[in-house]
Amino acid sequence: MSLGSRDLTIGVDLGGTKITAGVVNPDGKVLSHLRVPTPHQPEAVGDAVASAVDQVRQGWDDVHAVGIGAAGYVDERRSTVRFAPNLGWHEKPLRDLVQRRCGLPTVVENDANAAAWGEFRYGAAADHDDMVMVTVGTGLGGGIVIAGKLFRGRFGMGGEIGHYRAVPDGLPCGCGQHGCIEQYASGTAHTRRARAAAAADLRAAAGILALGDGTPDGIEGGHITQAARGGDRFALELFERTGKWVGQVLADLGSVLDPAVFVLGGGVGDTGELLRRSAEAAYRARLGGGKNRIFSEVLTATVGPDAGLIGAAALARLS
Amino acid sequence: MSLGSRDLTIGVDLGGTKITAGVVNPDGKVLSHLRVPTPHQPEAVGDAVASAVDQVRQGWDDVHAVGIGAAGYVDERRSTVRFAPNLGWHEKPLRDLVQRRCGLPTVVENDANAAAWGEFRYGAAADHDDMVMVTVGTGLGGGIVIAGKLFRGRFGMGGEIGHYRAVPDGLPCGCGQHGCIEQYASGTAHTRRARAAAAADLRAAAGILALGDGTPDGIEGGHITQAARGGDRFALELFERTGKWVGQVLADLGSVLDPAVFVLGGGVGDTGELLRRSAEAAYRARLGGGKNRIFSEVLTATVGPDAGLIGAAALARLS
Amino acid sequence: MSLGSRDLTIGVDLGGTKITAGVVNPDGKVLSHLRVPTPHQPEAVGDAVASAVDQVRQGWDDVHAVGIGAAGYVDERRSTVRFAPNLGWHEKPLRDLVQRRCGLPTVVENDANAAAWGEFRYGAAADHDDMVMVTVGTGLGGGIVIAGKLFRGRFGMGGEIGHYRAVPDGLPCGCGQHGCIEQYASGTAHTRRARAAAAADLRAAAGILALGDGTPDGIEGGHITQAARGGDRFALELFERTGKWVGQVLADLGSVLDPAVFVLGGGVGDTGELLRRSAEAAYRARLGGGKNRIFSEVLTATVGPDAGLIGAAALARLS
Amino acid sequence: MSLGSRDLTIGVDLGGTKITAGVVNPDGKVLSHLRVPTPHQPEAVGDAVASAVDQVRQGWDDVHAVGIGAAGYVDERRSTVRFAPNLGWHEKPLRDLVQRRCGLPTVVENDANAAAWGEFRYGAAADHDDMVMVTVGTGLGGGIVIAGKLFRGRFGMGGEIGHYRAVPDGLPCGCGQHGCIEQYASGTAHTRRARAAAAADLRAAAGILALGDGTPDGIEGGHITQAARGGDRFALELFERTGKWVGQVLADLGSVLDPAVFVLGGGVGDTGELLRRSAEAAYRARLGGGKNRIFSEVLTATVGPDAGLIGAAALARLS
Repeated sequence: MSLGSRDLTIGVDLGGTKITAGVVNPDGKVLSHLRVPTPHQPEAVGDAVASAVDQVRQGWDDVHAVGIGAAGYVDERRSTVRFAPNLGWHEKPLRDLVQRRCGLPTVVENDANAAAWGEFRYGAAADHDDMVMVTVGTGLGGGIVIAGKLFRGRFGMGGEIGHYRAVPDGLPCGCGQHGCIEQYASGTAHTRRARAAAAADLRAAAGILALGDGTPDGIEGGHITQAARGGDRFALELFERTGKWVGQVLADLGSVLDPAVFVLGGGVGDTGELLRRSAEAAYRARLGGGKNRIFSEVLTATVGPDAGLIGAAALARLS
Repeated sequence: MSLGSRDLTIGVDLGGTKITAGVVNPDGKVLSHLRVPTPHQPEAVGDAVASAVDQVRQGWDDVHAVGIGAAGYVDERRSTVRFAPNLGWHEKPLRDLVQRRCGLPTVVENDANAAAWGEFRYGAAADHDDMVMVTVGTGLGGGIVIAGKLFRGRFGMGGEIGHYRAVPDGLPCGCGQHGCIEQYASGTAHTRRARAAAAADLRAAAGILALGDGTPDGIEGGHITQAARGGDRFALELFERTGKWVGQVLADLGSVLDPAVFVLGGGVGDTGELLRRSAEAAYRARLGGGKNRIFSEVLTATVGPDAGLIGAAALARLS
Repeated sequence: MSLGSRDLTIGVDLGGTKITAGVVNPDGKVLSHLRVPTPHQPEAVGDAVASAVDQVRQGWDDVHAVGIGAAGYVDERRSTVRFAPNLGWHEKPLRDLVQRRCGLPTVVENDANAAAWGEFRYGAAADHDDMVMVTVGTGLGGGIVIAGKLFRGRFGMGGEIGHYRAVPDGLPCGCGQHGCIEQYASGTAHTRRARAAAAADLRAAAGILALGDGTPDGIEGGHITQAARGGDRFALELFERTGKWVGQVLADLGSVLDPAVFVLGGGVGDTGELLRRSAEAAYRARLGGGKNRIFSEVLTATVGPDAGLIGAAALARLS
Repeated sequence: MSLGSRDLTIGVDLGGTKITAGVVNPDGKVLSHLRVPTPHQPEAVGDAVASAVDQVRQGWDDVHAVGIGAAGYVDERRSTVRFAPNLGWHEKPLRDLVQRRCGLPTVVENDANAAAWGEFRYGAAADHDDMVMVTVGTGLGGGIVIAGKLFRGRFGMGGEIGHYRAVPDGLPCGCGQHGCIEQYASGTAHTRRARAAAAADLRAAAGILALGDGTPDGIEGGHITQAARGGDRFALELFERTGKWVGQVLADLGSVLDPAVFVLGGGVGDTGELLRRSAEAAYRARLGGGKNRIFSEVLTATVGPDAGLIGAAALARLS
């Protein structure tokens, strides 16, 4: 038995609609992969995770730990999911459940943190010690690495970058506040902007409308990306506008966190130059005292959709 | 000669108007203290710092290091002051200059970071491992401690909490941007608000106007504090309003940094319950997802005006 | 039969929940009065109005015209209700219906305009030629009188003062936009603010909470007024804050319309000095170029809840 | 002597840098024209106006009145200039001075009102009874016509459309307030935006920079127009952005004033489709309740730079 094989771990990405699990080696390579739907009953989800772990480890004798990235607030001991609206959970002791069921040491981590760690270890930020990952997906998530370590905050909630206030008296947010940056720099905001702009100028939006059902409200995020890749001016301008908000996020976080590198991920962040170019320009234009500071690099995520799973597996190896 | 005395260091607080230096023991006690004005000529300031060090160490044989907290951007090697508008400096190699002149190992640190370290080691946050210090003085400064270590960011600029954007299209800021939080949550904003409110309602402001020259523009920060301490309703409302902005700062930073404790300092922050009470209430009301999070403690600084000097001395001891 | 009695008209106030009708003499005195609920079926509302007119005119032979103030957009010919969400109407030819059914010349007017006219002819603005009425009720409505004539705009929609944009990227409004001033300067905003402030500081809100069911969400507008009248500090501060927004409305409209007088009405506007004092102070503080302008008077409405009915009756007399 | 010639009047446009005067016939045709610089001494300006009137009327026996459009606040009797910062005047009785010196009945009017009247009588709005003119020049000025009459407000200050608050806590304005719409929808804002955008992305701005001295701060309004006319994408986007703010102005004013037509004028407003197209699109997208309202027409001014002079001459004919 080789040393390498002795160091396999399992990573799990636990989301509101699906559970993905994989056996991962120290190089971040996924050796086997499983995807199952997330059960609708909150009380069934823990068992489904344990079953997925058992199933995917079949044939791999040398797995020695499990890491789970869960869509929710995870406590600072990386053990309990404090609150996960998409899973219907409050104070769920997930670590103990999986450990008992699978007989493997287990850690639980916030899913955005896990994805950030995957990107830090194996992706765009692999050459750096300090990173802020900015995930522009349905919402706006984040993960922070400081001096080579994942930053969790005192109570495990660190890195929630989507909920500082960007607009006084602004749009209501699901978190209970108004004007959170997530309402402006996210895929949801991107699509909302597209629909409003199309309703105001149907002619300019003709290209993008043709990709959906022809109505402004039928525009989906994928249509905007597809049209922009084809050079559609209306879609390109939407990326410019969303990019400006994302660049504002980089400037805001940069002034406080001063990282070596920002990595953009998520469905909208991961569109290469479409978003990155305008986000970086806005970041540079809006960083306070920018002329006397060193700018952080602004990169795009490279690990792909399994970053969370791979990162969770790597975190399991550390503990 | 006792072991204790062998561990003396010198701390320096280098500001735009004055230089303070002190011999400090490991308990944070200032054994001797010196204050001199900062020279107007930028090229004379380095020598003045070295002279202050030499002067204050007279009679203390066992000083073994120097720590300097400087009002400016300091590089990540804690050696060069990159930019200090109040000192007229660009790329000033302060560490080498002082080391050469005084023959003592020296570290240079941002002054707000030094003050935060002083508060962390000897003051309000002494029982915690993670702290964010929020200094509400002329501007809005900060210092961040994570896992017992001072956080500096990749390029030394971490903890600049005053320059994220709080108001789109907002007030112009000295950093070149618009709408920075410093324009709303600082002593300058506090006084500006007082003057405008007084101009709009001279009768309600009568108490506070009587403390100055009788005109709205003659109102100074000290008048507001003095009147508020006496129960003046107009002044108390100003603290309420500024406290709300400061509480917004805590909510914004808290959502990202999730610290164990916030410590309020600076001329406005350090007014005890006048500011702290409303700041904490606003923080709790505005923290996104607050109902499912653990709130950080909100405390007031306790070390006093020498926190920067004492913190710099303690940092010198570490290196 | 006296000349006076020959000049009677009927005024109708047609709202989403009730219809009030009255026979009114040229001095604005209501000689008889009727109130019935508004039918739930949109197609029954027109008949209900006509019936109310027929009913209330019983015994008054000398009624010669009908004026109807309707809660909705009314066209510039004062004939058709273009859109009335609370009545379920689109393009409803109300004038023809009532004229045919009752055999009396009829005019239809927007209800806020009718109330403004009532206040202009018989109330607070009776000594002036130019008035802006600002109705702070559930929403924020208005009515404008210029050179002694009711201002309607080219298409009948003039005087919709609640829907200019006061906050970029602000709160969503029922009109389809974001950040309309109505979201900040209205009874709804007043109550929303009270609930949020109470949730953030239950102790300070104890007095106001005791008037309702004890929970922040149980606070109603009437509780705030009642508590404020009793000197409750928490409630008085809410009036201060809402008054500032209303004063902003006066400053915004004043800079464009420069009226002789503003009249505050509606459930929140009509609370006497509670709102008027802070609204006037904010208006004076915020009017652009105020030092070189003449300030308009700021008064409170005096005609009472029948202002719309009385105004509609007076408008019928004019046509 | 023909009837036509008997009806000549003189119009004067009195600005901070120049005085223009002309003899104008009832068709709005300028028969003779004079331009002289405005004296620097405030006390010399009145005489300079009278001299210009005397000079330009040489050879025209049948002039019977004078109209003056002055850059300042004019009182409601159209007699005294209350405040004119560019002329250095406070409470200047200009009408009496010119009447006495020239022996002709004289009226004084605000210059933006005079220009609006010129456009209303002879230009883009000649077919309408209700108009709002929006002058996007150095600042943001306006003029309102209601039912065929120039609207002045109770104290002569009506139509000051540039100073309602568009952004809470926004940019400081010369009028003493913060966040006035003039700071966002004016030529000054247009140029400021161009400079900031160019500084942030020199490459994209190359075309526009080449028209000036090559630096962002050297960009002038004329460069933006010139580049945009040549199809430069960077310049076109600036017009899009400024057009959105101007469209917001139309939506804000439209919701209150509901005019038949908006006329865009001034150095930026008068650039044809460059501004008009995006302003109209934004107006339609942002008018509250737009789906149930009739949109006003949005036109560009057609009378040209003498609109103020011609309008003043026409106003003189009325009185």
